[in-house]
Amino acid sequence: MTIPSVTPETPFLASNHQDSKKHLLLATTGSVATIKLPQLLTHLSQKFSPSTLTIHLLISPSSKKFLSPADLDEVSRNPLVSRLWSDADEWAFPSGVYTRECPVLHIELRKWADVLVVAPLSANTLSSIVVGRCDGLLLSVLRAWDWGEKERGGGVVVAPAMNTLMWTHPVTGGQVETLKGWGVEVLTPVSKVLACGDEGVGGMVGVEVVVEAIGRKLGILSVEGEKEKEDEAETVEG
Amino acid sequence: MTIPSVTPETPFLASNHQDSKKHLLLATTGSVATIKLPQLLTHLSQKFSPSTLTIHLLISPSSKKFLSPADLDEVSRNPLVSRLWSDADEWAFPSGVYTRECPVLHIELRKWADVLVVAPLSANTLSSIVVGRCDGLLLSVLRAWDWGEKERGGGVVVAPAMNTLMWTHPVTGGQVETLKGWGVEVLTPVSKVLACGDEGVGGMVGVEVVVEAIGRKLGILSVEGEKEKEDEAETVEG
Amino acid sequence: MTIPSVTPETPFLASNHQDSKKHLLLATTGSVATIKLPQLLTHLSQKFSPSTLTIHLLISPSSKKFLSPADLDEVSRNPLVSRLWSDADEWAFPSGVYTRECPVLHIELRKWADVLVVAPLSANTLSSIVVGRCDGLLLSVLRAWDWGEKERGGGVVVAPAMNTLMWTHPVTGGQVETLKGWGVEVLTPVSKVLACGDEGVGGMVGVEVVVEAIGRKLGILSVEGEKEKEDEAETVEG
Ligand SMILES: Cc1cc2nc3c(=O)[nH]c(=O)nc-3n(C[C@H](O)[C@H](O)[C@H](O)COP(=O)(O)O)c2cc1C
Ligand SMILES: Cc1cc2nc3c(=O)[nH]c(=O)nc-3n(C[C@H](O)[C@H](O)[C@H](O)COP(=O)(O)O)c2cc1C
Ligand SMILES: Cc1cc2nc3c(=O)[nH]c(=O)nc-3n(C[C@H](O)[C@H](O)[C@H](O)COP(=O)(O)O)c2cc1C
Repeated sequence: MTIPSVTPETPFLASNHQDSKKHLLLATTGSVATIKLPQLLTHLSQKFSPSTLTIHLLISPSSKKFLSPADLDEVSRNPLVSRLWSDADEWAFPSGVYTRECPVLHIELRKWADVLVVAPLSANTLSSIVVGRCDGLLLSVLRAWDWGEKERGGGVVVAPAMNTLMWTHPVTGGQVETLKGWGVEVLTPVSKVLACGDEGVGGMVGVEVVVEAIGRKLGILSVEGEKEKEDEAETVEG
Repeated sequence: MTIPSVTPETPFLASNHQDSKKHLLLATTGSVATIKLPQLLTHLSQKFSPSTLTIHLLISPSSKKFLSPADLDEVSRNPLVSRLWSDADEWAFPSGVYTRECPVLHIELRKWADVLVVAPLSANTLSSIVVGRCDGLLLSVLRAWDWGEKERGGGVVVAPAMNTLMWTHPVTGGQVETLKGWGVEVLTPVSKVLACGDEGVGGMVGVEVVVEAIGRKLGILSVEGEKEKEDEAETVEG
Repeated sequence: MTIPSVTPETPFLASNHQDSKKHLLLATTGSVATIKLPQLLTHLSQKFSPSTLTIHLLISPSSKKFLSPADLDEVSRNPLVSRLWSDADEWAFPSGVYTRECPVLHIELRKWADVLVVAPLSANTLSSIVVGRCDGLLLSVLRAWDWGEKERGGGVVVAPAMNTLMWTHPVTGGQVETLKGWGVEVLTPVSKVLACGDEGVGGMVGVEVVVEAIGRKLGILSVEGEKEKEDEAETVEG
């Protein structure tokens, strides 16, 4: 699927995008594990059907540095992906200046999304979320998230990925606990040889773990699961 | 009044701007309620005389997105407004680089201002103030504010304005309490239909509430108040 | 010594820069005390020999505003200085995008450095360090520092420098204590007439105090110390 360009002429309104599919807002941040985005999407499209799941990608400015033009191309052709957002879209008003007709993108995305997954979550974004900083699209969606509503608070999954020493830094533990206290599901990093050559805890969990968490959160069946269900139904009918 | 352009040739020194007027530093941040700035200034100029009150505006980079050229023009023609500052002015040194003769703008503005009003105060700026961040002109003025001096600490008024869910976000309450602990007067948001279509608490208080707080903090009489006082004096004399 | 330009063709690997010298990573931030960098380096080169000590400079974007081209030139000709890093170097990948062969600069610098000195340390950077923010090269080095290893934690020295009211601001004290708790050596500011004309605590300690702290942390002898030792040895031999 080609990605509709977000021109000022077509502002995004959640209410225009209601359908029976589940809506996943998938964000990347400035961790080296962003290089796994194409792989993560391939896994997702093998597991889930475009009639069940649709994905909007939210690529933070620094995570773009980890995606080649070929990666972005591959990602945009994934059958599940229907939009690619970046920070500039939040401020792309038709007249250059906000007017009362302009929707507020971070609010619309929050309304649209059933689940928000940040994979990878960088140390820097973790810090920003916890202090309530919101000077980017992802941070604004998170700042306007419905944390009170259990179901929603539970609708955020993060997969931290960072150097071992960033992970064991004195501030990290408390910040992760804060997120958990808000209802966020944290996919705790694993131990491995990291991009920088160091070995230790901090690597992002495998993409299959992220895929599994997404399916569970959204309460959707995998393609095989659907197939099995159909087969069962046929057996019953037959 | 036309706004003197701040050229590197004319650095601003508080000591060159001592007069009998009250000095209000009025800052906007990246909330949609910035669209009310023209209305707020109109109210102020109806209520107070240019011989009593002079205003410097401090427009944060993201709040500029909420002001059209026509708004900026209207604002700059308001009789109370004598300067319009933006972040770049802090670093506009004649030679491009700081030299010992250069005044430090955020220090000069703090010395100049009797009262600092942030209306609207965004969620993001609230977060920055509380952690002591100061990578912009407004944040630097606040970081160098005289919080110890009761009168001064009491000289800061903020009018938060944000989406209901940003307002009810787990970090907001504690951050607002922190500001109050420093002596800041917080004009608690009201419940209304917000720009994003949601209804709930988070809207900025009415401009008349901000105007009232300004008059009270500065201890100045409104134009009518002055008139009444003159009339009284005449009555006594007559 | 001329400073090797950091071209994408020559990525920096700590393992290629092992030698018997002590390695000092010296960072400046956006305080006016950055104007003392040339003087600090002169003192260092008078005190220590290039065969004992080598320095990499890390100049934060805002601290560049306090260094004239002449200053930068003087600094780069200092015999102890072998590299000058800035934030952009972190993202200067040969192909424009990160690939698996690219070293991670903030990790390599942490491995390379025996001691990290931040002089001056601005109020803003202090705040960022404490909340774990890491959206710049210096902050990333600090976020990936080996705080657990006592020797390393003890390998960070900071020299705060700010306006008196920034120093006495309600957040500063607690943030400085946090750094001390991590093992950072804080060179407490002194009282003097500051750049802004105010008098009070907040000025950076004298450069000789910074020089002394560096020598002590690195456990290196000054040129005179080396001379004395040689003389002693000769006396013994003779
Ligand atoms: C090559 C390279 C690899 C990096 N890898 C990571 C990482 O795995 N995890 C992390 O937290 N930060 C990593 N960083 C640092 C972040 O990119 C940096 O803190 C950035 O400001 C984060 O931006 P964001 O969180 O706003 O997207 C890396 C930086 C570079 C240059
Ligand atoms: C159309 C639009 C409306 C926004 N309205 C608000 C708002 O009312 N309150 C708020 O806290 N943030 C709002 N935001 C988000 C802020 O603009 C964003 O967090 C920004 O980085 C704040 O910048 P500042 O606090 O440094 O000025 C809005 C953003 C957009 C694009
Ligand atoms: C002329 C001038 C002098 C300044 N002096 C100081 C200072 O001495 N200490 C400080 O903490 N901030 C000072 N500031 C404010 C910082 O430069 C500002 O907070 C900046 O964002 C810090 O950037 P950094 O910490 O990321 O390098 C000064 C600003 C200006 C314009």
